[in-house]
Amino acid sequence: MRIEILCTGDEILTGKTINTNYSHIAQRLGEAGLEVCWGTTVGDDRASLLTAFRQAAARADAVIVNGGLGPTVDDLSQEMAAEAAGVHLVLHEPWLARMEAFYARRNRPMPANNRKQAMLPEGAEFIDNPIGTACGFAVTIDGARFYFTPGVPREMRRMLDEQVLPRLLAKAGLQGVTRLKRFHSFGIGESRADEMLAGIEALAPGGGVKLGFQAHYPELETKLAIRASDQEELDRKLAPVEAEIRRRLGNFIIAEDSETLETVVLSALRARGGSLAVAETFTGGAIASRLSQVAGANEVFRRGLVACDLEQMVAAVGTAAEESRPVAARAVCLALQQQSGATHALAVLVRMEVGAEGTETGGAITIGLVGSETTTVREARLVGGRDWVRLGAAEMALDCLRRHLLGLPTDEGLDFERR
Amino acid sequence: MRIEILCTGDEILTGKTINTNYSHIAQRLGEAGLEVCWGTTVGDDRASLLTAFRQAAARADAVIVNGGLGPTVDDLSQEMAAEAAGVHLVLHEPWLARMEAFYARRNRPMPANNRKQAMLPEGAEFIDNPIGTACGFAVTIDGARFYFTPGVPREMRRMLDEQVLPRLLAKAGLQGVTRLKRFHSFGIGESRADEMLAGIEALAPGGGVKLGFQAHYPELETKLAIRASDQEELDRKLAPVEAEIRRRLGNFIIAEDSETLETVVLSALRARGGSLAVAETFTGGAIASRLSQVAGANEVFRRGLVACDLEQMVAAVGTAAEESRPVAARAVCLALQQQSGATHALAVLVRMEVGAEGTETGGAITIGLVGSETTTVREARLVGGRDWVRLGAAEMALDCLRRHLLGLPTDEGLDFERR
Repeated sequence: MRIEILCTGDEILTGKTINTNYSHIAQRLGEAGLEVCWGTTVGDDRASLLTAFRQAAARADAVIVNGGLGPTVDDLSQEMAAEAAGVHLVLHEPWLARMEAFYARRNRPMPANNRKQAMLPEGAEFIDNPIGTACGFAVTIDGARFYFTPGVPREMRRMLDEQVLPRLLAKAGLQGVTRLKRFHSFGIGESRADEMLAGIEALAPGGGVKLGFQAHYPELETKLAIRASDQEELDRKLAPVEAEIRRRLGNFIIAEDSETLETVVLSALRARGGSLAVAETFTGGAIASRLSQVAGANEVFRRGLVACDLEQMVAAVGTAAEESRPVAARAVCLALQQQSGATHALAVLVRMEVGAEGTETGGAITIGLVGSETTTVREARLVGGRDWVRLGAAEMALDCLRRHLLGLPTDEGLDFERR
Repeated sequence: MRIEILCTGDEILTGKTINTNYSHIAQRLGEAGLEVCWGTTVGDDRASLLTAFRQAAARADAVIVNGGLGPTVDDLSQEMAAEAAGVHLVLHEPWLARMEAFYARRNRPMPANNRKQAMLPEGAEFIDNPIGTACGFAVTIDGARFYFTPGVPREMRRMLDEQVLPRLLAKAGLQGVTRLKRFHSFGIGESRADEMLAGIEALAPGGGVKLGFQAHYPELETKLAIRASDQEELDRKLAPVEAEIRRRLGNFIIAEDSETLETVVLSALRARGGSLAVAETFTGGAIASRLSQVAGANEVFRRGLVACDLEQMVAAVGTAAEESRPVAARAVCLALQQQSGATHALAVLVRMEVGAEGTETGGAITIGLVGSETTTVREARLVGGRDWVRLGAAEMALDCLRRHLLGLPTDEGLDFERR
């Protein structure tokens, strides 16, 4: 089945807004085993929309249209869909009632121009939007099925998953259920992970599992797209593959699905009644920033110190200056642990390394970690420029803490280390 | 002149990579006074490319093609451009020589498949790429002019500005020079800025200045796109408009062009021989993180403290607990100033406000600022949810410091304040 994504709107066409809706839709389709063959972007312009609808209908079996369902005069999707399909717009009474109830609950009168959002092409299939005033709909134009979705990302994402994808899978003859299982790892590059997981798809009884990767340094996302006739079969297909992925990637898996390295670390601390203080140089407070963004982090994450250099860090916690960075990292952690009352303290020190030609070739990282009874120091040399080292150092420090909390070795070599 | 942007590549088509190249190209064209009418995305697929080239040629006068100029077998732009133009591929000797020299300088042999990058459609106009191995080129297909550019963003951006835009402007009969002047402001919403700057374009003698906005909370970017026949005329057009923008937006302008609030603050501190320490709650170290990312920040930014609450902050600097938040903010600053040896200390405290239905309606901000001779406290209530308040609080604290350093009032009301 040939699928096209048609994005509408002047903000997208002129580049004022980056088209993340396109990539989200295309990715979700791919994960569900469907293929996007073509993408089109046009503005809020009647002639362009009509041409785009007709050309897409000629190329594709199914077209996802995004945007143009709002209440204002430049939202033209319903009108042009009706024209392309050769029908009139008619009022969808149930949706009008829903919108009126939506405004009534907020004690506001519904603006008159919202009525436009309930005008659908005659004979269109209504598609629900449980979280907004732009309902979706489906119509057939020149033999191709068009699915109209709202431009607001949150609304589009939910409608895509709950309403559009099942319809597309049914149309493609791909009955059943789909799932996307995700593993987040740190320390393994994409090409090595690809090698390590060779042949893994074949472990699913009867097939239906597709492996994919997405690298966003310093993390790698390993994805399994699974399709099965029902939930039980899906679980049966997934179980041996996910078990084998956990075995092969092992301790390098930092989180799964919607978990992140930060949520895993904070949960592990919370489960042990623990709390944390962090001292950072060079990373600009990246660890503190990542931890703080997790809801409820302030129950566990007590304090972060961001220093421009080791001298300021040592002065801030009041320890003596040390010759050796491992000794200094340990001393900072011990002082910080005591002063903050946290059960755990983590310190990261970084020194950029400069090559023969004066270019930065990597960074020397020293991580100090003090827990209730143990102290750990991990040293590494990461490859890459300043920004790369910054990202890697923050990730490595958090990963050291995760490994420590979960009883895993903190000294396993990473692909990004210079030996 | 009708312009189309045609993006190629499986990574873009499948959504694995977000298409930021498209939005960059479209924005730059708009800023230069050119209009994009259509966007197309296709994969690394011969039939799709050929169809896309033909359809774009039928719709547009000029087409910018992005991607597909690499050395591997799935890079098909040159081959399909030649086929669409009805010509053969021929070796462009000068480019081959340039690539060989490029590798020679790095003491590496040129891989054999790089030769492919010097094969251009017969009669194509060569377009230089001074920073990569993928040269660009222009050909005419069915009467439309096609400009081929590399997919690597850095290479594309430079080629677009230096090579493609001048050609497009000439083709459109828009001779002369262009410039984009940018103002960054904090505290004024887009619609109010639009009102405040009404009629501003008319101040340019002979016209040629276009006003635009881009809001990325908490900042607003005000852009002037100027076109003139030469640099002197451009300066003459711009001068009265930019002077009037500075007058109308006044102290709310935090930076211009490639400057940011952080670089302005750090430069102002450096110019005064000053240095800075920061204490933050709730913002998760956003101020420390923003400052640290500026090159050379560590000469001025001494130390940051990130605390989960006021209690931890007070404990960290060793001051007494205070009933009043303004008093506490001032005490923390004074202690931090003394301990860090910095000339200036900045503290931000935030308390979320909860409405009748239990939803968060905004945040109460207290900013403490201590300089060499003065102490300032600024309080405000910002509207919005948790993430919005976090962004606003960090921005407001940095802006307080900027205003203090530049001798501007620190208590001017913001559009985002709840009164």
